[in-house]
Amino acid sequence: MFESAELGHSIDKATFEAAVPALREALLEAQYELQQQGRFALLILISGIEGAGKGETVKLLNEWMDPRLIQVSTFDQQSDEELARPPAWRYWRQLPAKGRIGIFFGNWYSQMIQGRVHGRLKKAALDQAIDGALSLEQMLCDEGTLIFKFWFHLSKVQMKDRLKALQDDPLHSWRLSPLDWRQSKTYDKFVRVGERVLRRTNRDYAPWYVVEGVDEYYRSLTVGRILLEGLQAALKTKNRPLAQPHAAPLTASLDERSLLDSLDMGQSLAKAEYQQQLASEQARFSGLMRDKRMRRHALVAVFEGNDAAGKGGAIRRVAAALDPRQYRIVPVAAPTEEERAQPYLWRFWRHIPARGSFTVFDRSWYGRVLVERVEGFCSAADWMRAYDEINDFEEQLTDAGVVLVKFWLAIDQDTQLQRFKQREAIPFKRFKITEDDWRNREKWPLYRDAVGDMVDRTSSEIAPWILVEANDKRFARVKVLRTINAALEAAFGKD
Amino acid sequence: MFESAELGHSIDKATFEAAVPALREALLEAQYELQQQGRFALLILISGIEGAGKGETVKLLNEWMDPRLIQVSTFDQQSDEELARPPAWRYWRQLPAKGRIGIFFGNWYSQMIQGRVHGRLKKAALDQAIDGALSLEQMLCDEGTLIFKFWFHLSKVQMKDRLKALQDDPLHSWRLSPLDWRQSKTYDKFVRVGERVLRRTNRDYAPWYVVEGVDEYYRSLTVGRILLEGLQAALKTKNRPLAQPHAAPLTASLDERSLLDSLDMGQSLAKAEYQQQLASEQARFSGLMRDKRMRRHALVAVFEGNDAAGKGGAIRRVAAALDPRQYRIVPVAAPTEEERAQPYLWRFWRHIPARGSFTVFDRSWYGRVLVERVEGFCSAADWMRAYDEINDFEEQLTDAGVVLVKFWLAIDQDTQLQRFKQREAIPFKRFKITEDDWRNREKWPLYRDAVGDMVDRTSSEIAPWILVEANDKRFARVKVLRTINAALEAAFGKD
Repeated sequence: MFESAELGHSIDKATFEAAVPALREALLEAQYELQQQGRFALLILISGIEGAGKGETVKLLNEWMDPRLIQVSTFDQQSDEELARPPAWRYWRQLPAKGRIGIFFGNWYSQMIQGRVHGRLKKAALDQAIDGALSLEQMLCDEGTLIFKFWFHLSKVQMKDRLKALQDDPLHSWRLSPLDWRQSKTYDKFVRVGERVLRRTNRDYAPWYVVEGVDEYYRSLTVGRILLEGLQAALKTKNRPLAQPHAAPLTASLDERSLLDSLDMGQSLAKAEYQQQLASEQARFSGLMRDKRMRRHALVAVFEGNDAAGKGGAIRRVAAALDPRQYRIVPVAAPTEEERAQPYLWRFWRHIPARGSFTVFDRSWYGRVLVERVEGFCSAADWMRAYDEINDFEEQLTDAGVVLVKFWLAIDQDTQLQRFKQREAIPFKRFKITEDDWRNREKWPLYRDAVGDMVDRTSSEIAPWILVEANDKRFARVKVLRTINAALEAAFGKD
Repeated sequence: MFESAELGHSIDKATFEAAVPALREALLEAQYELQQQGRFALLILISGIEGAGKGETVKLLNEWMDPRLIQVSTFDQQSDEELARPPAWRYWRQLPAKGRIGIFFGNWYSQMIQGRVHGRLKKAALDQAIDGALSLEQMLCDEGTLIFKFWFHLSKVQMKDRLKALQDDPLHSWRLSPLDWRQSKTYDKFVRVGERVLRRTNRDYAPWYVVEGVDEYYRSLTVGRILLEGLQAALKTKNRPLAQPHAAPLTASLDERSLLDSLDMGQSLAKAEYQQQLASEQARFSGLMRDKRMRRHALVAVFEGNDAAGKGGAIRRVAAALDPRQYRIVPVAAPTEEERAQPYLWRFWRHIPARGSFTVFDRSWYGRVLVERVEGFCSAADWMRAYDEINDFEEQLTDAGVVLVKFWLAIDQDTQLQRFKQREAIPFKRFKITEDDWRNREKWPLYRDAVGDMVDRTSSEIAPWILVEANDKRFARVKVLRTINAALEAAFGKD
């Protein structure tokens, strides 16, 4: 969920200062248009990690726009009046009117996450709070409120640095926060609970925007741009636009740094090392699959990746460890006629393994947010809601004891070119390369963005994405097997 | 929730037989059109009380339509294969393809309700099951499935009669049902849990249709007509119509029997009796409001009713028992400019009393599904979703300890006419009667339907509607006060 927001995004001061005047003018203009139309309100929810620049960013927004039309509300301790009424009353009384902007600090999300981290809320109560938030936001959207939910993020290391830097700042009092962020486990719990909350409350009409907070220029410009694009899109659409998906929820990073670019693609294994490690991981895998505890679990492995990244070869090495009766491989291509007549996920549900069994998906349900998104095979609304549907689907799998591992096999463009040429040169591999492959290659940047969004929105504690550096096939194959083994052991360990 | 389905609806055999041929032809035609368009699937969920004619009705639908395009699925005991996979797998494998009709007996609702009645599911687990059902249905709608949810209902007495009648029927084996319906408490629990489930899973794109099952002609014709109207409407609309509200979810009863018509309007109180009972209930009310236990509660009384039904007089009798500092009366008329700039419920949230206090709403949030619906002040989509929003709102109130009583003061048309004329004759009452009142009177049948739907969709254990027979003002006033007192005592008793 937070992968892309721990890359150390930054832009330099000059770029920032060059960009601000135009952004500011456009924001102001949009703000006045919002007021003039008087057709909907803008509600901005601010959440995230301590020290990630929440307050500074809101301060800046007030400077950039007309503060007379912005109301900032903080929800710390409940007042006597608030305590005497239903919990939502405090939010209702602060809602922005149509034409205006409301910024909610310490909103319902902060309350539920803090409550859970504190241990005041049990897991079921957290789920109820999540439902409450969803109903409230759905209703607000239906009634004409455009909602932006920002999560300001820092990695653990970044946060520690930041706390150190703030230590001597007299304006920054730790007493104000109900959580003790100096404790390492506070961060861990907060992020774990936050991830669950974000995963379950991300909706196409009210999506989460995760913003890395470490660099103020990057952070400010990112928030400003997201607000501007979303607001402009909503101002343009007529006829109840607000329950619709946000127009620009997924924007390429300002500093052009992406998750895939951050991989260390130089990793490799020498042949002897490879053979030894492969054999050892295969033996381990074979043993785990025959373990008694496997009866309580099923295993699902999803393989996605660039064309020619070596999915097939990796899958063969996994399968080689097992008796063919122990697994099934489901190659996912264009849907059949029967599959097209069903809801999208139907074609995957039908192949879900029973407990004790193992299914490999060679490409998967992620096609919706990859190829279908990039090629325009489905509408934006369809692939936008697919993130939620996929998270929900995968949660059903893991709740039922399915161990789910998801691999993205990543190669760089040069390696891909080289492999394409090799394939064309070798007769028995020629069938593996088509015109489509060359066409897809031209869409490399679109796929890169789609993969980044996919990982950010569907990688979670229950079903993390494993990015596999696959320029070296040997390294990739061993990493895949090792990851599967570790996932099985972790699941067995929890039984 | 089930009020209108316990009235003893029935139609005679001749009417039924006269109506069937046309209905049947239209259903068949719609079914073939569904197949030809191949644009969406039709999913019918069958739930409800044992013996209410679920099986018979589905059998009839298969006779009326082309059974080759209908697949009926029952979900009783899970098979070994199903037990080895996530719970939803069994539903996915039976989903109807686009162009076809699927009928699910013993679907997710039956499972969760039985589980809760059995005690296998805790309350929080029931809520999670409810969430799962909502996500699934939302996704199915988005993916092109038109969903009808039928609840076949019987009152307790009706059910007992029915069980007796079926006792000697060798085809009807009680062993098949996992619940023992011969036990009186089974019915009570089932209805209580069912009400909660219906209340929380009623959505405008997948509403519940509660059908009284006692008379086979009424039941069959009602189901057939609902299906036909909904299906025809969906066939007509293009562009993703299915997540939209059903076109005809609220249809006037076939036999013209309505909840309001079923009231015994002859009830009255003689003056001496009235004075004595009124004084006694007022004293009781005054005592309850000063009770220590009131500190943990607030009291909200909602007054709705026909024009000239005596709301004002009833409210005065309630207020007379108290010190003016103990209550506030909120008269609800057209919203102010400030209120119009906010979500609909905002104007009511702002008046929610603190614990220990009492607020009377003279007209209320139900305006949305009464006057706004009838007069067309909001779109059908707006008032359709208002039922869910209101249920959610009221649940938040009662969860926070608010005792909520809702009165519909009902008079008949003759009484209204008489009172209108009296008002015109008495100078100081003349301001109480306007052109609007006369106009509203012409819409009597529309209001009657709106009130019936309102009660059916928003009366629940946590916030029941009290229909007050108000032809006799004295009777009405005492009933109002007595109801408030009983509600307070019940709440105190639970503390």
